[in-house]
Amino acid sequence: MNEVLNSEEMRPLTADKIQKLNKHLHFLQNEADHFLGYPCTREFDYQTLFQFLQLPMNNVGDPFRASRYHLNSHQFEREVVDFFARLCGADAAEVWGYVTNGGTEGNMYGIYLARELFPQGMLYYSEATHYSVPKILRMVNARSIQIRSQYNGEIDYRDLFETLKIHRDLPAIIFANIGTTMTGAVDNIENIKQILKQLSIKHYYIHCDAALGGMLLPFIEGAESFGFDADIDSIAISGHKMIGSPLPCGIALARKKHVDSISRAIEYIGTFDTTISGSRNAITPLFLWYAINTKGFDGFKKICQRCIEIADYAIAELRAIGIEAWRNPNSITVVFARRKVPEIILKRWQIATEKDFAHLITMSHVSRNHIDRFIQDIRQLDQEVA
Amino acid sequence: MNEVLNSEEMRPLTADKIQKLNKHLHFLQNEADHFLGYPCTREFDYQTLFQFLQLPMNNVGDPFRASRYHLNSHQFEREVVDFFARLCGADAAEVWGYVTNGGTEGNMYGIYLARELFPQGMLYYSEATHYSVPKILRMVNARSIQIRSQYNGEIDYRDLFETLKIHRDLPAIIFANIGTTMTGAVDNIENIKQILKQLSIKHYYIHCDAALGGMLLPFIEGAESFGFDADIDSIAISGHKMIGSPLPCGIALARKKHVDSISRAIEYIGTFDTTISGSRNAITPLFLWYAINTKGFDGFKKICQRCIEIADYAIAELRAIGIEAWRNPNSITVVFARRKVPEIILKRWQIATEKDFAHLITMSHVSRNHIDRFIQDIRQLDQEVA
Repeated sequence: MNEVLNSEEMRPLTADKIQKLNKHLHFLQNEADHFLGYPCTREFDYQTLFQFLQLPMNNVGDPFRASRYHLNSHQFEREVVDFFARLCGADAAEVWGYVTNGGTEGNMYGIYLARELFPQGMLYYSEATHYSVPKILRMVNARSIQIRSQYNGEIDYRDLFETLKIHRDLPAIIFANIGTTMTGAVDNIENIKQILKQLSIKHYYIHCDAALGGMLLPFIEGAESFGFDADIDSIAISGHKMIGSPLPCGIALARKKHVDSISRAIEYIGTFDTTISGSRNAITPLFLWYAINTKGFDGFKKICQRCIEIADYAIAELRAIGIEAWRNPNSITVVFARRKVPEIILKRWQIATEKDFAHLITMSHVSRNHIDRFIQDIRQLDQEVA
Repeated sequence: MNEVLNSEEMRPLTADKIQKLNKHLHFLQNEADHFLGYPCTREFDYQTLFQFLQLPMNNVGDPFRASRYHLNSHQFEREVVDFFARLCGADAAEVWGYVTNGGTEGNMYGIYLARELFPQGMLYYSEATHYSVPKILRMVNARSIQIRSQYNGEIDYRDLFETLKIHRDLPAIIFANIGTTMTGAVDNIENIKQILKQLSIKHYYIHCDAALGGMLLPFIEGAESFGFDADIDSIAISGHKMIGSPLPCGIALARKKHVDSISRAIEYIGTFDTTISGSRNAITPLFLWYAINTKGFDGFKKICQRCIEIADYAIAELRAIGIEAWRNPNSITVVFARRKVPEIILKRWQIATEKDFAHLITMSHVSRNHIDRFIQDIRQLDQEVA
């Protein structure tokens, strides 16, 4: 590491501090080569944009309103929002959105919007929903009921029907997973709308947590629809997952008519503060803009296809050594029984686990070679034990 | 700009896109030379750490718990938390904290914690409080009352006393400003505690929004105490303001005993998710760690002293051209009448305004030369108009 000092108040890092940084960097570089369990690609390179990191950038405020803080990237952010709006089956005029700090903020935005529109509403979410959602619900004080999940992670439509039936008097807020965290299962929006229709529930709101699926399903022929064309109200998609980024980020999108109706309420309390975070990261919109403009729809489509091929390869190779593995349709999350793989291997490859399940996710940096080495590790340990 | 391509799915940026990026970079570099109105320094350089931006870094989860996601900077984050804990008059064992995405998240954390401890509590905040706070209060559904401010921006202690008196039956949650946004006024914690004592309110919680002041007061001899040694319960301090960062960030700190008591409740809902954001920026803790280790307490102290000198210089120069200007003690926010400076100059120098006030803030990048040019701009326009 070479240090650059620019202020008289600075002293150079001491040798032990430099060593500590270098040691950590090398540790991370090694770990990044054993990175199979999380839905984050390591295939990105934003060096072109690092010059912007020399300035106190801040996207404070609404990307669609002029700001007195000029050191922003709002114009790039608006293009990013537009790209995702179209990906989610909306035209730009229909929806409003912004680049968030990640999934939590996007889901919080959707839930907050729903609760403002329907203060008496009941929120329904499946037990396969990400662990951050019950926390958000508690934070925003929203009434909610957890619905059973099917074995594959999809919401149990029968349980949803029966539960909605009991609460037909309340507006329904549906929190749908477009790719659950653990098994990549997609809650079917058409089925959900059918249930609402059968029960004649007219006041409802659908939010989609499409952290991973939002950058996967649009690129797969015949995949379920989950966007504004499927009549949803808001959606959160991660930026650091399929697209990749060293800084967690995401997109929150919502129907403009809802946002406008709560803007009035917000204005009443004396602020035009439409985003959850006040000071906002201005670099991540540039990263996303760069990825969109260098990869494009076709590039992302090829990437998704390759990820699915590698997922099928991983399933075949796991089965070949006697480990039952499977994936949901249109998912790159490969699920297998946790007890089939020794803990030391799960840890080495940073494999997430939940209850009986473990999964690996074939993000774009995962090659056949990674899968082969993972399988080899299991076989070797099996032999040592045997 | 030189582009680096690393994937077969990537195509180079088109010439017009490269031009667009370059044009924006030059625009920003020019604007950064007219950056007087916001409490963000532009004096930082983290190039040494840019190698970490090649990896999918993520500080997901509690920095004090082991994580399966190994590509994190938790060990550096813990050192940053420890530095701020000591700055706020606590020893590390007393408090828990983490690096946030900025002020909103830190204040939201404090308010959430207070509301969990005192669900029936009434929150009191002054009218000079940052505009994001009413939004947070609405989001988390907390009962609250706005208290009048004095002319200098400090909370009106008489109004606070009278209002608390009416609601003595409720636990009191005090949201104190350690440096208001507009005038840098500090709500006096000792006075507030005195009022609570007079009214014999035993159940109370004090949160400090010390966005700017938290990195200023500890370095000024004889400044008000505002930290855990003054018996507060939680605090939020910005990282991108006094320390400086191209990515907004901050620190949330709270008494460990409070955090532990809500952890049990969180655990009950099935998660150990102690931070508000799930996926968390792992680069900003490295930036803060780097600044702390290259500047240190003494470096920050020198910086703060120089900022105050420049603030006094700005006041003198403004007065010399007939514009009454002032600052609160221990503040680097120079306040003047908005109508005294033409709108075009305010915009050019990115000066924030609110009602009748305008302010410039002499962050560490602001030199005498900046002030001279700002004054020169006003004089020149005055002459043109005259």
